[in-house]
Amino acid sequence: MGIHMGEFDLIDHFFNRPRPSNPAVELGIGDDCALLRPEPGMQLAVSSDMLVEGRHFLSTVDPARLGHKALAVNLSDLAACGASPMAFTLALALPKVDPDWLAGFSRGLFLLADAHQIELVGGDTTCGPLNLCITVLGQVPTGQALTRAGARPGDDIYVSGEPGWARLALEAFRGRITLDAALWERARQHMETPAPRVALGLALRGLATSCIDVSDGLLGDLGHILHASGVGAEIEADGLLGQFPQTLRSAQGDDLLRMCNWAGGDDYELVFTAAASAHKAVEHAALASRTPVRRIGQITPGHGIHLIDATGHAQVNPYASFDHFQT
Amino acid sequence: MGIHMGEFDLIDHFFNRPRPSNPAVELGIGDDCALLRPEPGMQLAVSSDMLVEGRHFLSTVDPARLGHKALAVNLSDLAACGASPMAFTLALALPKVDPDWLAGFSRGLFLLADAHQIELVGGDTTCGPLNLCITVLGQVPTGQALTRAGARPGDDIYVSGEPGWARLALEAFRGRITLDAALWERARQHMETPAPRVALGLALRGLATSCIDVSDGLLGDLGHILHASGVGAEIEADGLLGQFPQTLRSAQGDDLLRMCNWAGGDDYELVFTAAASAHKAVEHAALASRTPVRRIGQITPGHGIHLIDATGHAQVNPYASFDHFQT
Repeated sequence: MGIHMGEFDLIDHFFNRPRPSNPAVELGIGDDCALLRPEPGMQLAVSSDMLVEGRHFLSTVDPARLGHKALAVNLSDLAACGASPMAFTLALALPKVDPDWLAGFSRGLFLLADAHQIELVGGDTTCGPLNLCITVLGQVPTGQALTRAGARPGDDIYVSGEPGWARLALEAFRGRITLDAALWERARQHMETPAPRVALGLALRGLATSCIDVSDGLLGDLGHILHASGVGAEIEADGLLGQFPQTLRSAQGDDLLRMCNWAGGDDYELVFTAAASAHKAVEHAALASRTPVRRIGQITPGHGIHLIDATGHAQVNPYASFDHFQT
Repeated sequence: MGIHMGEFDLIDHFFNRPRPSNPAVELGIGDDCALLRPEPGMQLAVSSDMLVEGRHFLSTVDPARLGHKALAVNLSDLAACGASPMAFTLALALPKVDPDWLAGFSRGLFLLADAHQIELVGGDTTCGPLNLCITVLGQVPTGQALTRAGARPGDDIYVSGEPGWARLALEAFRGRITLDAALWERARQHMETPAPRVALGLALRGLATSCIDVSDGLLGDLGHILHASGVGAEIEADGLLGQFPQTLRSAQGDDLLRMCNWAGGDDYELVFTAAASAHKAVEHAALASRTPVRRIGQITPGHGIHLIDATGHAQVNPYASFDHFQT
């Protein structure tokens, strides 16, 4: 039932690395607590996410991709706040100690950690049904964190990247649609190894009036911004179809692809708002962070999300059930 | 398979409380990240623990006691570093949403949280085999954190409270021994609602040369101090028997009780070292923090743990297997 001594050594072997390089980390893994020192004038940003086998991933997933994703979804929360990553803890329940699995998982985890100069500073390993819980710590200049509140009527609404591909992969994975090899690989990469938009989040400090990351579905997550800000939104229903190749649109139909755009989750893109006058500055932030950004609509004084067509006419919103706060 | 919308509202009802009172918390639960501001000159201390049903607790445990214990074992890590608690995150995998269970769990959790003025600032709730992961955040003046390294030959070794009762409860729970009702209640309280020694940890800043909390067994955890400090220890084998009532000693025998003292885990007491010249200061720290503290031995220049009897003669150490680092 337990994990044996030699197995703890093995786990140590994969997770206990040399002295951390992030300057905020003053005592890393191995004591009762890790010690960190955010820079003067900085607030600490903290977020936790738990991934459960069978719900967030299948036992057959490549462990390196799982290691990447477990950290990516947490880094995405820091990105949505405009925080700079410092450190993370990892608590891991394992049904058994499998060196191959641990080697793959830790490789994927640390590749992404190193890319963001974020250090594993502590955690826990125990025996149990496979479960990963990561807590990330970042820092942001006091008062400059991006939150869900702050969107104002007239603000433009933007989204990064290509939201919808992760859901497209899920539909293919579930056998509801068939994709050719190239499209499947592209979609699968979005689902299994999302890129947390940390650089964009940093570039949006002092610029975005609100921000959130897309985990549950674009309109649902935008709904959190609207609720926290006390405003509504007008969204161009076809605004994100252009990212899909014409062959895919012909094969699958635009209805499915619109659903993937607006109701698909697991993309970990950023949805944010900015004053209309800041349009050039947003373009610059996108360029500086090498992150594609697209305007998808506008904040309104009302409430709820209203879909419009290219000519500005209202459309029925079939994704209402994904918008937790629409009234 | 999932948790439905109304159920999220229910979970919110139990965990989303009014604006936090801890002054370090500047943005609490409800956004992508929480925001904290440690006081100037303070380091941040962070630790994560995961509790799994069937391994750390049984499904039959009173949920209020489980809520207490889940936070207590994490606060104990802050105590062992001499850190002052600020905030925690809670990630929870639940097989089903049971309002009675959530009411009890959150009551036990927040009673202890309020006693230590520590705020729930974020987390995650998902569907899965019952699993609780808490990350605690505390602060400690830069350079004053207690660590496992720092014990020096000649230092006295102390332990707080009454280590051994939690293991005694486990033995009774497993049916290996029988306790009368009063002793069972006393032992069970140690196992199910341990008191994290936060006040003692704070009082030991600048005084203890090393510190750790007892989770896996006293000698095993002391072994971590010895390993990190590059020293050995001489321990009085019968030094903790005096805490047990004479009737219990007669009924169970001292061999079992010594095993509970030295190899029993789950006590969450502090084991620490201090210079022999600091004996009065340690007594004062114990009084000031209203925490019983007992001297159990001395740090030696050698390595490993050596048990001695009351006359100073060496005894065989039958708990060697619990001492991960003895050589």
